[in-house]
Amino acid sequence: MNRKYLRNLLEDVRNGTADVDEALEKLKDLGSKEFEFATVDTHRELRTGYPEVIFGQGKTPEQIAGIIRFMLTGESNILATRVTKDVYDKIREVCQEAVYNPVARTVTVMKKEQERPSTHIALVTAGTSDLPVAEEAAVTAEIFGNRVERVVDVGVAGIHRLYDKLAVIRQARVCIVVAGMEGALPSVVGGLVDKPVIAVPTSIGYGANFGGLSALLGMLTSCASGTCVVNIDNGFGAGFLASMINKL
Amino acid sequence: MNRKYLRNLLEDVRNGTADVDEALEKLKDLGSKEFEFATVDTHRELRTGYPEVIFGQGKTPEQIAGIIRFMLTGESNILATRVTKDVYDKIREVCQEAVYNPVARTVTVMKKEQERPSTHIALVTAGTSDLPVAEEAAVTAEIFGNRVERVVDVGVAGIHRLYDKLAVIRQARVCIVVAGMEGALPSVVGGLVDKPVIAVPTSIGYGANFGGLSALLGMLTSCASGTCVVNIDNGFGAGFLASMINKL
Amino acid sequence: MNRKYLRNLLEDVRNGTADVDEALEKLKDLGSKEFEFATVDTHRELRTGYPEVIFGQGKTPEQIAGIIRFMLTGESNILATRVTKDVYDKIREVCQEAVYNPVARTVTVMKKEQERPSTHIALVTAGTSDLPVAEEAAVTAEIFGNRVERVVDVGVAGIHRLYDKLAVIRQARVCIVVAGMEGALPSVVGGLVDKPVIAVPTSIGYGANFGGLSALLGMLTSCASGTCVVNIDNGFGAGFLASMINKL
Amino acid sequence: MNRKYLRNLLEDVRNGTADVDEALEKLKDLGSKEFEFATVDTHRELRTGYPEVIFGQGKTPEQIAGIIRFMLTGESNILATRVTKDVYDKIREVCQEAVYNPVARTVTVMKKEQERPSTHIALVTAGTSDLPVAEEAAVTAEIFGNRVERVVDVGVAGIHRLYDKLAVIRQARVCIVVAGMEGALPSVVGGLVDKPVIAVPTSIGYGANFGGLSALLGMLTSCASGTCVVNIDNGFGAGFLASMINKL
Amino acid sequence: MNRKYLRNLLEDVRNGTADVDEALEKLKDLGSKEFEFATVDTHRELRTGYPEVIFGQGKTPEQIAGIIRFMLTGESNILATRVTKDVYDKIREVCQEAVYNPVARTVTVMKKEQERPSTHIALVTAGTSDLPVAEEAAVTAEIFGNRVERVVDVGVAGIHRLYDKLAVIRQARVCIVVAGMEGALPSVVGGLVDKPVIAVPTSIGYGANFGGLSALLGMLTSCASGTCVVNIDNGFGAGFLASMINKL
Amino acid sequence: MNRKYLRNLLEDVRNGTADVDEALEKLKDLGSKEFEFATVDTHRELRTGYPEVIFGQGKTPEQIAGIIRFMLTGESNILATRVTKDVYDKIREVCQEAVYNPVARTVTVMKKEQERPSTHIALVTAGTSDLPVAEEAAVTAEIFGNRVERVVDVGVAGIHRLYDKLAVIRQARVCIVVAGMEGALPSVVGGLVDKPVIAVPTSIGYGANFGGLSALLGMLTSCASGTCVVNIDNGFGAGFLASMINKL
Amino acid sequence: MNRKYLRNLLEDVRNGTADVDEALEKLKDLGSKEFEFATVDTHRELRTGYPEVIFGQGKTPEQIAGIIRFMLTGESNILATRVTKDVYDKIREVCQEAVYNPVARTVTVMKKEQERPSTHIALVTAGTSDLPVAEEAAVTAEIFGNRVERVVDVGVAGIHRLYDKLAVIRQARVCIVVAGMEGALPSVVGGLVDKPVIAVPTSIGYGANFGGLSALLGMLTSCASGTCVVNIDNGFGAGFLASMINKL
Amino acid sequence: MNRKYLRNLLEDVRNGTADVDEALEKLKDLGSKEFEFATVDTHRELRTGYPEVIFGQGKTPEQIAGIIRFMLTGESNILATRVTKDVYDKIREVCQEAVYNPVARTVTVMKKEQERPSTHIALVTAGTSDLPVAEEAAVTAEIFGNRVERVVDVGVAGIHRLYDKLAVIRQARVCIVVAGMEGALPSVVGGLVDKPVIAVPTSIGYGANFGGLSALLGMLTSCASGTCVVNIDNGFGAGFLASMINKL
Repeated sequence: MNRKYLRNLLEDVRNGTADVDEALEKLKDLGSKEFEFATVDTHRELRTGYPEVIFGQGKTPEQIAGIIRFMLTGESNILATRVTKDVYDKIREVCQEAVYNPVARTVTVMKKEQERPSTHIALVTAGTSDLPVAEEAAVTAEIFGNRVERVVDVGVAGIHRLYDKLAVIRQARVCIVVAGMEGALPSVVGGLVDKPVIAVPTSIGYGANFGGLSALLGMLTSCASGTCVVNIDNGFGAGFLASMINKL
Repeated sequence: MNRKYLRNLLEDVRNGTADVDEALEKLKDLGSKEFEFATVDTHRELRTGYPEVIFGQGKTPEQIAGIIRFMLTGESNILATRVTKDVYDKIREVCQEAVYNPVARTVTVMKKEQERPSTHIALVTAGTSDLPVAEEAAVTAEIFGNRVERVVDVGVAGIHRLYDKLAVIRQARVCIVVAGMEGALPSVVGGLVDKPVIAVPTSIGYGANFGGLSALLGMLTSCASGTCVVNIDNGFGAGFLASMINKL
Repeated sequence: MNRKYLRNLLEDVRNGTADVDEALEKLKDLGSKEFEFATVDTHRELRTGYPEVIFGQGKTPEQIAGIIRFMLTGESNILATRVTKDVYDKIREVCQEAVYNPVARTVTVMKKEQERPSTHIALVTAGTSDLPVAEEAAVTAEIFGNRVERVVDVGVAGIHRLYDKLAVIRQARVCIVVAGMEGALPSVVGGLVDKPVIAVPTSIGYGANFGGLSALLGMLTSCASGTCVVNIDNGFGAGFLASMINKL
Repeated sequence: MNRKYLRNLLEDVRNGTADVDEALEKLKDLGSKEFEFATVDTHRELRTGYPEVIFGQGKTPEQIAGIIRFMLTGESNILATRVTKDVYDKIREVCQEAVYNPVARTVTVMKKEQERPSTHIALVTAGTSDLPVAEEAAVTAEIFGNRVERVVDVGVAGIHRLYDKLAVIRQARVCIVVAGMEGALPSVVGGLVDKPVIAVPTSIGYGANFGGLSALLGMLTSCASGTCVVNIDNGFGAGFLASMINKL
Repeated sequence: MNRKYLRNLLEDVRNGTADVDEALEKLKDLGSKEFEFATVDTHRELRTGYPEVIFGQGKTPEQIAGIIRFMLTGESNILATRVTKDVYDKIREVCQEAVYNPVARTVTVMKKEQERPSTHIALVTAGTSDLPVAEEAAVTAEIFGNRVERVVDVGVAGIHRLYDKLAVIRQARVCIVVAGMEGALPSVVGGLVDKPVIAVPTSIGYGANFGGLSALLGMLTSCASGTCVVNIDNGFGAGFLASMINKL
Repeated sequence: MNRKYLRNLLEDVRNGTADVDEALEKLKDLGSKEFEFATVDTHRELRTGYPEVIFGQGKTPEQIAGIIRFMLTGESNILATRVTKDVYDKIREVCQEAVYNPVARTVTVMKKEQERPSTHIALVTAGTSDLPVAEEAAVTAEIFGNRVERVVDVGVAGIHRLYDKLAVIRQARVCIVVAGMEGALPSVVGGLVDKPVIAVPTSIGYGANFGGLSALLGMLTSCASGTCVVNIDNGFGAGFLASMINKL
Repeated sequence: MNRKYLRNLLEDVRNGTADVDEALEKLKDLGSKEFEFATVDTHRELRTGYPEVIFGQGKTPEQIAGIIRFMLTGESNILATRVTKDVYDKIREVCQEAVYNPVARTVTVMKKEQERPSTHIALVTAGTSDLPVAEEAAVTAEIFGNRVERVVDVGVAGIHRLYDKLAVIRQARVCIVVAGMEGALPSVVGGLVDKPVIAVPTSIGYGANFGGLSALLGMLTSCASGTCVVNIDNGFGAGFLASMINKL
Repeated sequence: MNRKYLRNLLEDVRNGTADVDEALEKLKDLGSKEFEFATVDTHRELRTGYPEVIFGQGKTPEQIAGIIRFMLTGESNILATRVTKDVYDKIREVCQEAVYNPVARTVTVMKKEQERPSTHIALVTAGTSDLPVAEEAAVTAEIFGNRVERVVDVGVAGIHRLYDKLAVIRQARVCIVVAGMEGALPSVVGGLVDKPVIAVPTSIGYGANFGGLSALLGMLTSCASGTCVVNIDNGFGAGFLASMINKL
């Protein structure tokens, strides 16, 4: 339930176009909706401006489909991350219009157009193997109504590739930089732009990479100012935060 | 050198109020100024909107004073972080108006008023021991012209203290949340506001805290959306990024 | 062998209703029962008030079924944790009344009713993915005769969900709080109740979670008093300790 | 403010022996008391049954003395942990009756007798070097009104020393076991008693001890049931939890 | 080639019962035998008293079978560790009398009787799940001619089981103690015997066990004297060293 | 595009044998070639003397085959590392002459003979299980035109095997030493030769090896001078650097 | 109290040369002697063949002197490790004949000659900086009656120095090898001798040494058989175990 | 003793200008020189082309001065690293011409001119605080006869500073790149040059830097080819290896 829906409901009550019992029924799940296995936070959009997003990992297909069936009774766009094709097949049983992105491993259901800010988000990726994480960020930012400009495979080992694309990066209101291995790209980008840089370490690499730890530590200790970091492989978190900043 | 200074200089050249040689001389250090021990990035303000900041740790008092003496020839406000009282005494020899903040361990020199955005930054601190890091963030944000509203000692073990202050936090354009030990406060704040939250882990704690690692990991794996993280004890980085977002 | 059984046996000997040889035979396995691959601690219930529990991980189905066949000759309820469906099928061959809980991955055999304390244990879970660990705790506490009240999916990112359930938590004699990712929930609960809180970190999460390490460290360094921690994913340990405290 | 104080106040209001304005003034700090550097949780005793305790590490002597001066206006006993002799000297300026325990590094102010449960807490220590942590636990438990029985230096390398003292341990309602190095003692004790065991790892040791990590991991992975763990060197946390359990 | 074989050969040369060319041919591989993928250390038995042992992990079945075919031309008993059933099937093609131990995952070929010391090795195991590692130690010690007395499943959570078997442990010339989880058993055994104790941590456990790290650190920091440690799961190393000590 | 190709092109332009538009077209991809999923660094050979190499891990077979199809339009030899047999089958569809090395897991396409330096590279391997990493180094060095002399399975536990081969090692211009487990071999080799030693830790081992960490740390802290280290299992990096040094 | 002392006492009782009360008094502290801060294990020599040793770290000078004053009433030689000069000065007040070794940081009091085995212990040190740890091992072995042959500074970077001393190492009954940095020396020695090798990692080194972790991991994962490891810097443990093996 | 010295000596013997006894005496210490606390590797220069260097950390001033007094009898230049001013004062007592570099913390004694290669080494430093490590590398390379070109403070946060100096870096035969914090500079340099790059991580930084671990891991996982890594803060190792490569 978002602010606009509640305003309309309350005005209907004041105007007498809705009676109190009816309105009460509609407000029943204002705070949260309880399932046996979940307590969906229906109050979140009112509180934070964004509806709850389903983190698919560790949930059964049945649980995810059940949550989506409930969310379909609302008005918000729906996003589920970290879902496999199997989960998608289960979701299709309750929602034909659900869309699966196999690279990002996301399911989305568009229920309304979001207002689109005029500015865009730059999404910069160090290597081809980082694409799944970057695409999760892109899908997230896009379902919340943002335009995303992708700059692919411009890691620091061939840094002229970054310079070729600097204009599109500098014109963005906020940048997401996705990198695995040593994770040096956000440091370089952070030194070249005057906008916030959200660094996303990925688990891409091997050996002393230790599942993304190297990239994570590198980004945290970056000597470039204006940079912050999200969890390893957390494309969703980066896309969400970038959307929040882009809409300020 | 910032954009405005350069625009003035170039207009003076076009108008004939400055001659070319003179302008060239002024532009000599446009890219960087070389010392024996440092290459000061004089181009940074033009490129990123912010002048270079001096990270004091690991530099001798003489080196820091030398860099400041050079920066005094420019027009930007000066900020040095991680400096002891000894360093400040050395700086005073080259700059009487330098100000020392013993809690934040910063030296600042105000050379011009910054334009102040109408919105403010909320700076939330979990415990009293986190104050030095929080104060570093505050000094940083303030020298770049931001208003900072402090909310002190509202850690999750007595969470009603946070609720008492929620209005001032929710009205901010961006929040900084500073916490040591288990670092849970940013997760809670992130679930209550619709603005970006910059989480700052501190090294406060003992035992399984491992120098701030616990707080850092907790913040990175936070299940609250819209949150990002900077390095342990990196008050400067948080203040800088918050300023950048507040001025978007 | 529990205290009551031994008392009866000794009284039978004193009264002459049991002869000494017969009693000796019954006492043969008083300390332990030796198998080729195990030395079952038959003395435990006498010593600690609780019978030995079978930790299934790393044991073959044959070994587990063998131990259960022996324990069936006793009077205690039987609990095996960390067992797969395959193991259960093997157990069924020696014990038809064994019950399998596929979420908790436990096998239980009820041989007698436990005395039930009037107070209950509150079992609070941060997210849906934490349910298997929580359910292992519940099954453990229940087979030892406790009433368990479940509060599901009330993680700190939507903290009003916790407040909605605070009464049932506060009325408990002891709380178990299960959480993955940043593991912040026990800190918040610990600050709201005046009863012992047993925190259970889970391995749910990804990236900087490092298999539950983040949640573990967060819980250990929690600034809430009255909280203690068990091993990652150790639902059994939490349920056992909660039972012990609930029965004090 | 504890429950009894509030009940008296409210009864006085109802009876007319206190007038409303006066009561309001007394209730002003019911939730918390704000300082420039701290927000003291005055509501805690009402909520959790225990007053707030001052964690001294990272606070200045002036800050600690200031908090104590305020707390002296209340009725609760006062406990400050992790304080040096210097801090104590500062505290003496505002409170002559404060007592310093140099082994535990605590300051206590007794303002009222606590009700004493008839049962006791067993405090078992593996080695002489673990005494400061054990003493912090003892002081904590004692100021909250508990009787503590100490068993000193009975580490597993000479396990007969433990057996000599088993009676006093078994008669306790709850046990605290403090150990550094490999931290094996709680596992052994946990296998011998039918009461909750709170394990406290200490940073005592060297080399592969890594500041208490070995003892911590050993206690977390202990195969003895009924055991839980607090942070490394966290004597306070163990004493507090033991008191909570002892008073159930 | 062992010392006795060489002595015989040299005596044959001196006596004229072997001619020089023939002896030279026999000595060709005295130092090592080269394969495309391996350089077998044929000199080891002469140098260290023990023939080379094949560490199977990371080698292909063909490589292992090839090395064994060569070793069959010698006189030493053959031991291959960390081998699967597949490898064994391959080995059977070159050596019918090879024996597979599925618990220890070893292949052995007995070529001669070893001299057997009169003393025995005690092999103590904390839990049933530790048996594969313990069995690797037993097979290793036995193929080198030692008598091994097994004491199974006597972990510290039920320490009376250890006391029941103390005689057989104390009579040994050297003890191997195998334990996972918190790895406390060697500390206890080390405090009870006057013989060397070889501690073997296993990777058995979960959560904060971190693949055997907890047990390893616990054993290294043990406060019992006379104890040493080998690598996690290194049953072979323990059996080998115990054999060396038993034969001194 | 290498230096020679560009020189020819520019001379053709100067001589009028190529017209400017034609040359421009040829220079279109001088900096990089963009794909949807990759930005191939076509400028690398000009800049660093070596063409870009395809790191196969994390790329789909289609992506790898697509990049190779483009690179076939150039003149450089092609190397793809970390590729499975499946990838090779896909590559064969676009390039029949591609060669697969199943031990090294590499695909190579020879397009021209490289100039061969007269000196050779010594490639020393500690154990049989380290061969895949060593072979990746060998294939890399060879495709860039170097002669590689292999010394196999000469780990420090039988150090005479190393001495037997010392001549071929000492005559090399640069040594690569590949070792897992404790990784001691580079220290020993480094103390015996007067040439650079490139140490390659492998993930071979178990237990406290922690995926190659032990070997890595051992090599980094080696007390032998003239030694440097590459990432765990990074045969490619070692072969590449050795080639660079061999060609100086 | 050792076995011989007790035998004499019991024989005196049987012969009537000692009366029962007198003997009882002497046996009063047979199990342990309790202090306020320690429970000295007086039974250890009877049980393990060795008297208790005082680990000085974390004990106050008063505590150490107190324990020694009590031990002087016995007949065993006294050893205190990890003691500073300050502690020694305190000890001198209760025992003039105490000897301080400033390199090993030990205090010893010789009360009787130990029987000396004919065989010796080889003590091999990789570098000069490892001497304090090595010397602690030497003092320990010597006070228990062993002859120790020192071989100093023969690290693997100049391995011919080791070969020069191989005879004295090979003639020993057991070897101690002390090394910091990469800790490779025990692997090399272990491959050259047919006797047990006790590896002692030291904290000597810097950077990726991480306080001795590199050397520790290297020694644990050593591919040389017959090697075991003690804690970082644990010279005492190595000397004690070597003595135990030397006396078998 | 270097190759030239030995050649002269042997020729003198052949020519009769030196008699055999005299030559024998001179060769007495050919392999090593034994001290009580050290075994100096006098054979190293003959074997590896470089004399032994004294690693000062962990040695007493007396030990260092003693080794230098002996080395002064030879002909090689002398280098001691990690020495404090106190050590230097001690050295001055045995060698007046010793030179102390307080930034690099080295002592050098020039005994002969080294042959100087025509090519130079580029020494690139990311920040001012990295200078001590860089200077240790410079001193090392210079005493072995190399020309070192320093490029200071060109970290990736202001990457144009690097481009300004690219020529001097590209003309070098080998590059050393020293960086702390995230350690990204070697990746960028490695992508821009066609020469070997030796990366030196430093311990400069704080928080998630963990004593240089971040920079180390970043450099090891760098995606730039032609790069290798030495230990954290190991300026000596980098300078030594660069010298070795520069002289090939």
